[in-house]
Amino acid sequence: MNSFGNLFKVTSFGESHGSMVGCVIDTCPAGLTLNLEAIQSAVDKRKTNQQNFASQRNEEDKVEIASGIFEGKTLGSPIAIFIKNKDANSSDYEALKNVYRPSHADYTNHLKYGLRDYRGGGRSSIRITAPLVAAGEIARQCISHYTNMRVVAFVSQIGSVKMQLDNNFLYQRESIEASVLRCPDSLKSKEMQLLIDEMQKQGDTLGGCIHVQIQEAPIGLGEPIFGKLQAELSHAMFAINTVKGIEFGNAFSNVSLTGSQLNDSFTNEHGAIKTESNNNAGIQGGISNGELIHFTLAFKPISSIQREQKTVDEQGKQVEVSIKGRHDVCALPRAVSIVEAYTNIVLINLLLQNKLSRI
Amino acid sequence: MNSFGNLFKVTSFGESHGSMVGCVIDTCPAGLTLNLEAIQSAVDKRKTNQQNFASQRNEEDKVEIASGIFEGKTLGSPIAIFIKNKDANSSDYEALKNVYRPSHADYTNHLKYGLRDYRGGGRSSIRITAPLVAAGEIARQCISHYTNMRVVAFVSQIGSVKMQLDNNFLYQRESIEASVLRCPDSLKSKEMQLLIDEMQKQGDTLGGCIHVQIQEAPIGLGEPIFGKLQAELSHAMFAINTVKGIEFGNAFSNVSLTGSQLNDSFTNEHGAIKTESNNNAGIQGGISNGELIHFTLAFKPISSIQREQKTVDEQGKQVEVSIKGRHDVCALPRAVSIVEAYTNIVLINLLLQNKLSRI
Amino acid sequence: MNSFGNLFKVTSFGESHGSMVGCVIDTCPAGLTLNLEAIQSAVDKRKTNQQNFASQRNEEDKVEIASGIFEGKTLGSPIAIFIKNKDANSSDYEALKNVYRPSHADYTNHLKYGLRDYRGGGRSSIRITAPLVAAGEIARQCISHYTNMRVVAFVSQIGSVKMQLDNNFLYQRESIEASVLRCPDSLKSKEMQLLIDEMQKQGDTLGGCIHVQIQEAPIGLGEPIFGKLQAELSHAMFAINTVKGIEFGNAFSNVSLTGSQLNDSFTNEHGAIKTESNNNAGIQGGISNGELIHFTLAFKPISSIQREQKTVDEQGKQVEVSIKGRHDVCALPRAVSIVEAYTNIVLINLLLQNKLSRI
Amino acid sequence: MNSFGNLFKVTSFGESHGSMVGCVIDTCPAGLTLNLEAIQSAVDKRKTNQQNFASQRNEEDKVEIASGIFEGKTLGSPIAIFIKNKDANSSDYEALKNVYRPSHADYTNHLKYGLRDYRGGGRSSIRITAPLVAAGEIARQCISHYTNMRVVAFVSQIGSVKMQLDNNFLYQRESIEASVLRCPDSLKSKEMQLLIDEMQKQGDTLGGCIHVQIQEAPIGLGEPIFGKLQAELSHAMFAINTVKGIEFGNAFSNVSLTGSQLNDSFTNEHGAIKTESNNNAGIQGGISNGELIHFTLAFKPISSIQREQKTVDEQGKQVEVSIKGRHDVCALPRAVSIVEAYTNIVLINLLLQNKLSRI
Repeated sequence: MNSFGNLFKVTSFGESHGSMVGCVIDTCPAGLTLNLEAIQSAVDKRKTNQQNFASQRNEEDKVEIASGIFEGKTLGSPIAIFIKNKDANSSDYEALKNVYRPSHADYTNHLKYGLRDYRGGGRSSIRITAPLVAAGEIARQCISHYTNMRVVAFVSQIGSVKMQLDNNFLYQRESIEASVLRCPDSLKSKEMQLLIDEMQKQGDTLGGCIHVQIQEAPIGLGEPIFGKLQAELSHAMFAINTVKGIEFGNAFSNVSLTGSQLNDSFTNEHGAIKTESNNNAGIQGGISNGELIHFTLAFKPISSIQREQKTVDEQGKQVEVSIKGRHDVCALPRAVSIVEAYTNIVLINLLLQNKLSRI
Repeated sequence: MNSFGNLFKVTSFGESHGSMVGCVIDTCPAGLTLNLEAIQSAVDKRKTNQQNFASQRNEEDKVEIASGIFEGKTLGSPIAIFIKNKDANSSDYEALKNVYRPSHADYTNHLKYGLRDYRGGGRSSIRITAPLVAAGEIARQCISHYTNMRVVAFVSQIGSVKMQLDNNFLYQRESIEASVLRCPDSLKSKEMQLLIDEMQKQGDTLGGCIHVQIQEAPIGLGEPIFGKLQAELSHAMFAINTVKGIEFGNAFSNVSLTGSQLNDSFTNEHGAIKTESNNNAGIQGGISNGELIHFTLAFKPISSIQREQKTVDEQGKQVEVSIKGRHDVCALPRAVSIVEAYTNIVLINLLLQNKLSRI
Repeated sequence: MNSFGNLFKVTSFGESHGSMVGCVIDTCPAGLTLNLEAIQSAVDKRKTNQQNFASQRNEEDKVEIASGIFEGKTLGSPIAIFIKNKDANSSDYEALKNVYRPSHADYTNHLKYGLRDYRGGGRSSIRITAPLVAAGEIARQCISHYTNMRVVAFVSQIGSVKMQLDNNFLYQRESIEASVLRCPDSLKSKEMQLLIDEMQKQGDTLGGCIHVQIQEAPIGLGEPIFGKLQAELSHAMFAINTVKGIEFGNAFSNVSLTGSQLNDSFTNEHGAIKTESNNNAGIQGGISNGELIHFTLAFKPISSIQREQKTVDEQGKQVEVSIKGRHDVCALPRAVSIVEAYTNIVLINLLLQNKLSRI
Repeated sequence: MNSFGNLFKVTSFGESHGSMVGCVIDTCPAGLTLNLEAIQSAVDKRKTNQQNFASQRNEEDKVEIASGIFEGKTLGSPIAIFIKNKDANSSDYEALKNVYRPSHADYTNHLKYGLRDYRGGGRSSIRITAPLVAAGEIARQCISHYTNMRVVAFVSQIGSVKMQLDNNFLYQRESIEASVLRCPDSLKSKEMQLLIDEMQKQGDTLGGCIHVQIQEAPIGLGEPIFGKLQAELSHAMFAINTVKGIEFGNAFSNVSLTGSQLNDSFTNEHGAIKTESNNNAGIQGGISNGELIHFTLAFKPISSIQREQKTVDEQGKQVEVSIKGRHDVCALPRAVSIVEAYTNIVLINLLLQNKLSRI
């Protein structure tokens, strides 16, 4: 259960403080010219230690591709990707070796497997997403070969600071990257930064929302039953640490509205069939209809807080814990990279699937 | 992509107006005594034509099991389940043969596959869930063999009428089934019924929310990365028609709170490790921690409304459509059965997975 | 583990004396016009009771397709295929209910699953192949849409009677079907029939060999490692009851020869690259090279003999058994249909796989 | 299609002259204490340059395990295994860059993928088996935790020199390893060596047979249909380069015998059910019956011969080629390691599968 995707299948491996984290793509079609710099760049954007909001672990995160390419092109054989763990400081975790950190995976992993790698969260660390971001970038390059479809994700809320979304508008990467917090609303971005600074002083952490637009998606992505586009996307999104909710369009507020208010009428715009509204957020019957696809993710605050917390140790003894390590106040700006990468992995699978859908 | 689950894998087949709908379970462990009446009963609860809120298609929905059992016990071979389509009235759909109904799967299916079964939504009909409900009941019986875990789902909101949830409380099936709308809050249930009656007069439809509790779940369900419990659950839930959002716990309102407010401290209660709060809704690091698991689903109103709507036909010509067939005002009470069934399919897979997790 | 194929995946279900046997194809590409008569005809050829060499169970074997087609074309949704069991005479098996028949699957199934359907071999009966032959014919029709590739299998040996093979020659279906034993060598066919008649008198059974040619295969079928063409084919072939050996080309006799004797030199024949010899039997590095693919299967005699045999019952008591039922002397002529069907299922998967191999 | 196994799934990656070859095991159950020296030792036995019969590429083949173990035990997370390519001498292949070597995978790979890594066979090199041998040793250690089952493979024939097999006898590793050619018949081993020496002088190569015994297999390995033990084993075996045939027991010579001659009568030996003969080679109905499982593999001679051969280049021009590189005269002694490893991977999957077969 460490793989995702059925055609462009990505298998993850590695623990936070092992020698490396990595993944294998089985398979990217042969003959694609890979832009290696763009892959490194995508991983760099995910990196910690960019700002004060982020963890202080200082990793080079150099992407190594060990197989599947030759003279710059994909061979059609598995692409193995590694990122070495160089700055893992396991001594930070010695004190926590015997303790179950609140709202972390320590307790559940230990009881499930009978043992656990206590260093840095082991397999449950956000670090394992680094090579998956590289895989997502390869997925993106592959998608670009076939379509103009683009995934654009950004921070739309941190704590209680929330920007107004407008899905009649295609957000641009430039306006997102202009903000260190990856929020395209520059005013809200500043408010968010103030909130983060405050929380850092308090040794506390923040959650928020990431919004995703899939722009210029072709018609026909997804399948009627278990392969519904929203089913595949949500599976991938919940594989991201701290994601706790997802809605397509305004799903939760729309429950108060009626069918006649929400149905998207078809219209013929100079020969092209379009919908007049887009309450279905680009998906009908689990399949993309050519309109903008968009969804919002709710992230809980990360669990590693510096404040003292009550917990138990492995022997069940009540103890106090204060997590010193090097941790984010808010993971969302970095998570934007992960969200985009996983979305691209979903989309390349569905695009390839469509090569098989008709005789 | 018509299968779900990796160990107790369910493969769906059938179209709304074909000869039957069905599924194959590959595989349920051998030696389980099946309660066949309970299987029929589960499917009956999903049936249409129960009340005025529901569709008027009058199907017997007799469950036939064609393989995999012998003398009342599972053989360990695939279990094939059929439900014949007897009351399919395709003539209802002749008028719609050439028309793309708004917010339905007609248009997307046609463009994806190059042809479509226009009768009753074909493969995209909610009818295909009937045999899957039977499979879910077999999953439930299998789960009961191993644990006390129970899935309890109910309607918590229809349109704007919303009950107050209390997850310190284990909802009981009796109080849910006491309401024809499957809402355990009897006052709200009546309000919901009034709203449904009103909408029926208006020829309109309603969405809402279903809330799910997984009671007495064992510790250890789910895996750290792509097999996270919430990832598996959400994948299954979004495979249900009209589901557009999911949140575990209060994911969307919790984004405004901080880590220190939301972390669930561990405590030792007379030798048992518990959490003091349950903001993580029973899942930490993607794995169940022994606390109550709960989540909420947002359903859009069903798209078949009797009011006139603007749309286009297959030639792109602008037409008006009014959907006469036999359709629900609100699908949620019936969807409760589907939600429970799919949840049980997820859970039996994860339970079986745990037979392999340790040497 | 009841499925075969990754893209055109066939899931088998059913027991010999249950209500039916069947399978589900997930998925055949949409838009293929199915020749339903050819499907029935393929299944008829597999049927028992054709001649004195074959079992006396008299099944109509009517193929029912319950889903996945609309107005004669595939919908791209799962195709469910059923064949009802009508002439199952379970009373034949009452006497054997408690007995492990020698060289049958009774004992191993019982010890594996803790119970067994003793009627007609249950899941291990050759009867489960009937719907798979229908699936194989759909695979063949799908292959015909893309290429001229044809699978031609025939009986090359029964007992000690063996025909001379010539793989410089493309065997034709007509000459094979001219023989009731499906052996294109008419002289040997007669000898085989005499041997069968003799064995029938003695209450004994015969094995033999089936030879398979894959004619006009395109270049590029198969993958370098676990998806090698011969790996996929042998997996499918050993899924057929009583197959105990397979060789590609003259594998076993060739082990005495040297590399220089066996290497197939490439040559340019008027612009087409061909090999001068074909010792590799059309496969190099696990991938088809455009030459004739051919292999031979060794079948053991079927185990149901009328002669008295020594065995034990479920309590381990030593007993004598004489199998009265209705059984073949030699299953090979019927098995030709199964071999061709399974080969076609392998090939359609590899053809579809090739739609994904290049960007 | 670069993975094998459904529960203990091994995904292969790497090309012969890339930076490394490797694989990922997803997943080995948690809590197994790994013997790392035994893993290295298994890989060393597969290594080239052991003797004059083997290739001269001099690789250290140091096994690196990058994930999935902690303090000597498996974590239940994916185990990534690497072996760096250090002595890859790509200049050997510059001359062959544009040439299709006879009976190699050059031509088929090129036409399938549109490009190829011409250096050392790329993905089709036997070198990719090195990390899979490590995976097989982990499988073996896992098997040893559960049962006494042992896989013992050995060379039974090289060229025309063939030892007499006796499957009433359990061959021991000591007698096999006593021979540099891994043939337990010391006399035949010497004859084989003479033949190899002679062929080396002639610049030619040799094939042969490997025989495999699965000793003390438990009852119940394998499944009735596509998961038959022989189907799974043959799939894995044909994934090994140059394997062209397989027979279980004496499949090919047995086709001349009758059911009454070959059926294995059950007998009660002091309370244990055994068979009097073992013509079924330990498998009935695709499932192990507790008797010795044994099969024989036919290998063609390796294709890299030093003699001049006729072939074509990428432009279709007729050329002469003489393969200078560093190649084996006979790969079989090394292949013994690969055969055992792949067999163990099949067996651990079936053992784990049996944890799920009964309620």
